[in-house]
Amino acid sequence: MTHVLGDINRISASDFVAALGDTFELAPWVAEGAAGRRPFATVTDLHQAMMGIVRAAPRETQLAFLRGHPDLAGKAARAGALTEDSHREQTSAGLDSLSEEEFARFHRLNDAYKAKFGFPFIVCVRRHTRDSILARFERRLAHDAATEFAAAMQEGFYITRLRGAAKGTGEGMPTVNGRLSTHVLDTHAGRPAIGIAVELYEFASERAHRIATAVTNADGRTDRPLIGGRPLPIGRYELRFAIGNHFRSRGIDSGDPPFLDVVPLRFSIAEPEGHYHVPLLCTPWSYSTYRGS
Amino acid sequence: MTHVLGDINRISASDFVAALGDTFELAPWVAEGAAGRRPFATVTDLHQAMMGIVRAAPRETQLAFLRGHPDLAGKAARAGALTEDSHREQTSAGLDSLSEEEFARFHRLNDAYKAKFGFPFIVCVRRHTRDSILARFERRLAHDAATEFAAAMQEGFYITRLRGAAKGTGEGMPTVNGRLSTHVLDTHAGRPAIGIAVELYEFASERAHRIATAVTNADGRTDRPLIGGRPLPIGRYELRFAIGNHFRSRGIDSGDPPFLDVVPLRFSIAEPEGHYHVPLLCTPWSYSTYRGS
Amino acid sequence: MTHVLGDINRISASDFVAALGDTFELAPWVAEGAAGRRPFATVTDLHQAMMGIVRAAPRETQLAFLRGHPDLAGKAARAGALTEDSHREQTSAGLDSLSEEEFARFHRLNDAYKAKFGFPFIVCVRRHTRDSILARFERRLAHDAATEFAAAMQEGFYITRLRGAAKGTGEGMPTVNGRLSTHVLDTHAGRPAIGIAVELYEFASERAHRIATAVTNADGRTDRPLIGGRPLPIGRYELRFAIGNHFRSRGIDSGDPPFLDVVPLRFSIAEPEGHYHVPLLCTPWSYSTYRGS
Amino acid sequence: MTHVLGDINRISASDFVAALGDTFELAPWVAEGAAGRRPFATVTDLHQAMMGIVRAAPRETQLAFLRGHPDLAGKAARAGALTEDSHREQTSAGLDSLSEEEFARFHRLNDAYKAKFGFPFIVCVRRHTRDSILARFERRLAHDAATEFAAAMQEGFYITRLRGAAKGTGEGMPTVNGRLSTHVLDTHAGRPAIGIAVELYEFASERAHRIATAVTNADGRTDRPLIGGRPLPIGRYELRFAIGNHFRSRGIDSGDPPFLDVVPLRFSIAEPEGHYHVPLLCTPWSYSTYRGS
Repeated sequence: MTHVLGDINRISASDFVAALGDTFELAPWVAEGAAGRRPFATVTDLHQAMMGIVRAAPRETQLAFLRGHPDLAGKAARAGALTEDSHREQTSAGLDSLSEEEFARFHRLNDAYKAKFGFPFIVCVRRHTRDSILARFERRLAHDAATEFAAAMQEGFYITRLRGAAKGTGEGMPTVNGRLSTHVLDTHAGRPAIGIAVELYEFASERAHRIATAVTNADGRTDRPLIGGRPLPIGRYELRFAIGNHFRSRGIDSGDPPFLDVVPLRFSIAEPEGHYHVPLLCTPWSYSTYRGS
Repeated sequence: MTHVLGDINRISASDFVAALGDTFELAPWVAEGAAGRRPFATVTDLHQAMMGIVRAAPRETQLAFLRGHPDLAGKAARAGALTEDSHREQTSAGLDSLSEEEFARFHRLNDAYKAKFGFPFIVCVRRHTRDSILARFERRLAHDAATEFAAAMQEGFYITRLRGAAKGTGEGMPTVNGRLSTHVLDTHAGRPAIGIAVELYEFASERAHRIATAVTNADGRTDRPLIGGRPLPIGRYELRFAIGNHFRSRGIDSGDPPFLDVVPLRFSIAEPEGHYHVPLLCTPWSYSTYRGS
Repeated sequence: MTHVLGDINRISASDFVAALGDTFELAPWVAEGAAGRRPFATVTDLHQAMMGIVRAAPRETQLAFLRGHPDLAGKAARAGALTEDSHREQTSAGLDSLSEEEFARFHRLNDAYKAKFGFPFIVCVRRHTRDSILARFERRLAHDAATEFAAAMQEGFYITRLRGAAKGTGEGMPTVNGRLSTHVLDTHAGRPAIGIAVELYEFASERAHRIATAVTNADGRTDRPLIGGRPLPIGRYELRFAIGNHFRSRGIDSGDPPFLDVVPLRFSIAEPEGHYHVPLLCTPWSYSTYRGS
Repeated sequence: MTHVLGDINRISASDFVAALGDTFELAPWVAEGAAGRRPFATVTDLHQAMMGIVRAAPRETQLAFLRGHPDLAGKAARAGALTEDSHREQTSAGLDSLSEEEFARFHRLNDAYKAKFGFPFIVCVRRHTRDSILARFERRLAHDAATEFAAAMQEGFYITRLRGAAKGTGEGMPTVNGRLSTHVLDTHAGRPAIGIAVELYEFASERAHRIATAVTNADGRTDRPLIGGRPLPIGRYELRFAIGNHFRSRGIDSGDPPFLDVVPLRFSIAEPEGHYHVPLLCTPWSYSTYRGS
């Protein structure tokens, strides 16, 4: 349920805790502390205040907060025993549909991580693909305790910022969403390439999975972003553009088979809240791409 | 065995036929006819003369010449009953290592083709990948008789030109080989990209098979062409350039994971005797390619 | 004075003629004819109806309409004896500030043109630079009578469409304005190039005259189009981008002097009502441009 | 006169001094010293040895060597009283054809420089355009004494390396020449652009002077480098490519006037001994360039 910031500032402390208490996983004391600091000028301020309460808490309380998080792809997930938020988050990266082998790999990593750091591995799943979760997991396992404590807190910040942005609305919303867009220009004709079939693939374990399709409109763009309205999951992607059909339909002969047919652009996303504009400038004999704006 | 043009012009007619009689599959009469037209100024002239004899022959003789060719990927190939030339040619496109399913497909196509046209499907295998052989096979099966007779004769021309170029040496060799080359420029640094790992893949049935690897030298080129000294098989290819490592080693941060890592360039070859120069101009954030020269 | 289409449809015929009578130079009969065809659904319909009246008029009436136009850069212009519209139009391309030599050239062309065709040279000056007016003048002088009559009528159409768009407002305005925009991307850094000084030059007789300056904003664009809200004059232009300073301020060494400093992009505009987007993608060592959208 | 290294190693000391004594301006003692260090394996070794003698000489001797150089564009040059080498060198950058104003400017700079440093301004003129000589002059005048002494010695090194390379021939010639080349690719057609008129301009005081013309050959290159066989003068340049005619002759309509006609590429040269490859990839609607190899 979404709450308007004006209401959040006015309601009773107990209603405030009821509304926002589960923003921080199993840690309603954060909302209890924030209730007394109202009013907040912006939703971002509200989230900063709640994070400030966590950062100012005693170490043991912080640890308890971290320990309140479920294992990633753990037994609780399999048993359906997660909080509603955690369940939705883990589903977003496909962690609810792992193979036995993958499940076992997560299990081993979870155990090693908890044995070393004393709390479960926390990552803002919505900001990642499965590949990047695994890559970060291995990398963070090698951290020293202080570095990893800070990394876990930062991920808690990302998770609660997203949950908070879903619960509250009003002035000064934090930036939690990114955007992936494209644009196809036919520099042979000097105009947008219309009707180009575009496919977006996400890589998982060296295999490409198609996650979106679109067709370019009269301006050579897609009507909607290829990904939008949510964080861009960190990971590797490939856009494929069927330009061979386009030039064939314009009556251009570029060989049999044509020199260029389906053009793949392979790139990675590293900023989930960023705008990635990945255009294609093409002729039947050449193309170029770049991170645009 | 390779013969020098000067010798070919001087030897007895019977030696000439012994040397060149198998250029035209099971048709020594072509060499017999050409023996009397010597001397030839160039190897190309010699081949043109032999083709002229075929073209001037009665229709029944031409048909016999076409019928002298073995089935593509046929039973003779499996039984090892091909002429030496035919064996080497069919091996070049991997027709000697088909799955049962593929073998059955060729078998069906061969039967349908022979039933329609009265001679086996002839294609200059060395100028093709397996995918393009199958694509042409389907397409040529739809031809009318006159069009397909001309197409088969043209393929005979390609086969014998290649065989002739392998048998004779001297002035005026016909162009039978192509070249695929690349060049990597780091336009972030304004100089050639050195030490870039380059891989060349050939597509077969939507799967990419690696057929060559190289590393760029001090000029950003590969020491040898990626394909050279033979016809470029008509087909679909992908070059992959590991530019992520290059920019990382130059200390450039383009995100984690880097925006560009392995860049694929997907293109087709349609001119087996052509020069395909497919360069990559790149920065950590952009790249372009084109058919160069 | 601008009139709302709704009012135009309602007012008396005499008020209508008073409002729109001078749209067609010295030809109030066009407005008189159009008054009776009201109401018009769009401003474009109104203009089409007026043009239809001209096209349906007897040849002699059409000729009188064409003859009602003043000489371009003629004695009337010098003497200040033009209609208000004609004066503003001729001023827009600098025809009011010609050298004696240029004035003499126009005078010779005007005389030759009138001697050949029987009416003065008509061109929609707002859609042209001085160079393109002269180029068209020479070219149209070579026309045969029928071709040139059609060309003159077409220019009358352009002139009155612009006048009409200035006089009327409401639904279905005709497209009379174009837009020239740019965008600078630093593909070395993978982001927009901010603070780039941009200059726009128009060519006249091989000399470049600066007609606009701008600085790129946080998105690498200029806050306003380089030309907008009016037709883009047909002619030759050059954009100059001071990218040397940009890369120097980023601490990048590209030689002394730097390989690239001020980058000129030279292009022509041929569609006054079009959108010309002329971006620059650049590194210290490379750049590209294209007609974008 | 050119001497073969083998001969130089064998001739008498006095012949050696006669042959090479004027390599170092008015300082035959350098050649006298080098005579006794023969044989030299390479021409580069010979030059390094001579420079070593200068560097090992007492400060007063070094100063005398520097003082032996004539003023740049000075009275001696006007009076024809320069050594033959100095005369040829100063002529190469047009210092023999200055306006009165420019002559006065050099005169003032020379006086200020000698007053500050005690020796005349030395620069290897063949490695510069007039603009870059003036720019360096101003900049070096601001040096402290030690920095400028080193700069003057370095210029002496460049001058004598060039003179030495002209006098001696044989193994291990020093690299004294650069090369400016281009290449035009028509990426609309996927092949080299043949017959493109190319002009090279050098900038002097914001004005462009044409210094070379060429036409692209069947490979889209010029038959000879645009500059070659000599150092590339440091300075600002513009290449102009008449691509409008090319696309017009191919029957392509890109507007009237065409969107692209003469394409200017403006760049600077900073490495006189380097290879500058400045290609143009173009369609009627787009182009790109880069420092290639």
